[in-house]
Amino acid sequence: MQTETPPPAELDRDLALTPLDGPDEAVRRFSGHLPGGWSVGGGINGGFLLAMIGSAVRDTVPDRPHPVAVAATYVGASTEGPAEVTTRVVRRGTLTTVAAELAQDGAPRITALATFSDLAGLTDEVGTTAVAPVLPPPEECVRTSDAPPDFLRTAPLVERFEMRLTPRSVGWAVGQPSGTGLLEGWFRLPDREPDPLMLLLACDAMPPVTFDLGRPGWAPTVQLTTHVRAVPAPGWLRLRQSTSNVAGGFFEEDCEIWDSAGRLVAQSRQLARVPR
Amino acid sequence: MQTETPPPAELDRDLALTPLDGPDEAVRRFSGHLPGGWSVGGGINGGFLLAMIGSAVRDTVPDRPHPVAVAATYVGASTEGPAEVTTRVVRRGTLTTVAAELAQDGAPRITALATFSDLAGLTDEVGTTAVAPVLPPPEECVRTSDAPPDFLRTAPLVERFEMRLTPRSVGWAVGQPSGTGLLEGWFRLPDREPDPLMLLLACDAMPPVTFDLGRPGWAPTVQLTTHVRAVPAPGWLRLRQSTSNVAGGFFEEDCEIWDSAGRLVAQSRQLARVPR
Repeated sequence: MQTETPPPAELDRDLALTPLDGPDEAVRRFSGHLPGGWSVGGGINGGFLLAMIGSAVRDTVPDRPHPVAVAATYVGASTEGPAEVTTRVVRRGTLTTVAAELAQDGAPRITALATFSDLAGLTDEVGTTAVAPVLPPPEECVRTSDAPPDFLRTAPLVERFEMRLTPRSVGWAVGQPSGTGLLEGWFRLPDREPDPLMLLLACDAMPPVTFDLGRPGWAPTVQLTTHVRAVPAPGWLRLRQSTSNVAGGFFEEDCEIWDSAGRLVAQSRQLARVPR
Repeated sequence: MQTETPPPAELDRDLALTPLDGPDEAVRRFSGHLPGGWSVGGGINGGFLLAMIGSAVRDTVPDRPHPVAVAATYVGASTEGPAEVTTRVVRRGTLTTVAAELAQDGAPRITALATFSDLAGLTDEVGTTAVAPVLPPPEECVRTSDAPPDFLRTAPLVERFEMRLTPRSVGWAVGQPSGTGLLEGWFRLPDREPDPLMLLLACDAMPPVTFDLGRPGWAPTVQLTTHVRAVPAPGWLRLRQSTSNVAGGFFEEDCEIWDSAGRLVAQSRQLARVPR
């Protein structure tokens, strides 16, 4: 009897890369396709792009399968269509660092430095003092996919995952943002458990935290650094996104990702532009 | 009558770079020297190295004089002696992004992505909700340069600047760390006012926050991202450094830098290894 392999989940299908010949041994090249389904406001979501870069890095250094620290600078908007990712190993070790670039039409869109390792090899010690968000259960939260059809048309991204924002995080949808600069909610993919690569997507999946400050609109990411600290347990993830320094037309956005076992599995911080 | 130009401050002398011929037009090369005076435990301080990379980037794109976001991955320890910095412009714009690498003996020690701009051109809007540290005045704090001679011999770095830690931040020096994971204090250079470049140094100038958790020892930086959000006012800077996720042999360290006018001028986060 053969065990049937289940079909790949949507995210993994959409992240699929084809190796190309590189210009030399030191540089590897991959071609992929950015699906319109991951777009929001016409651009492809930055978390999906980060996961694609992570996927290329993993293929480049398969003995170091997990992202540990990925720092990405967004130098141009990416749109639906073909994309190319190039990778160059900077240093190999227990922690292996790879420089990676995602380009479209020959122009860089994201340039990144990714440090990968094997998270399964870390010590079991957990001395986390950060406190997990205490959220109402998912069924008492608000599905982002229940947004008005007009919104969904410009943000097909929202239909790629299950996100449930806490009631106090969605005041902006009815003209009553809390003004705190805090969004909290649940996150999962419908057909796939979380893994370290998926956390690169999750850290930029929420609406901009500036929505909660009464500033709707696109908040372009300048720079995004994500630390992945552990392999997440199966089940719902909890996301907490906050800002404390909106100034000079920019803001920082911190995201914490907690897994179903109560572990702080990822932390990210981005610098973004305040929506006009 | 001629106005005498004051001699350059120590930091600026030590950051001096000499342009070299590049391998091609796209790549610029600079030679510098890492002075032993900036070392701690035999390695050169990561903040000084970040400032040297920033200095090379500024020379590469002089019309964008200020760091806005600098993400650096530390792939090897740097030691006293010659160093070379190479820079490559990834994209020019209001925000200009440059890839930079600092090498010694032909091997990379730090690889970085730096986004520079002109901070003087930002809007005046400040909506910061983070609260500045309330510290006892510098004269009621503890000078790190008053550390025991045995310590100073291994950390000449400490004599390059004036740092005054709050009394509650130095319990570790007498075997009574607070256990909170928080260090706060004052910082300035004796011969120079702060500027955006100097903030790259300041964000990694404090002892590792793990000292406050009763874990003395060197905490090697894996990755460090610094956002510089404003040109700092003259005078003392206030630093607040904290961690909330010590786990699996790694920890995150956040640093806030507040200027004398009460502005949150820089935020950094690093991923580092817990001292053994």
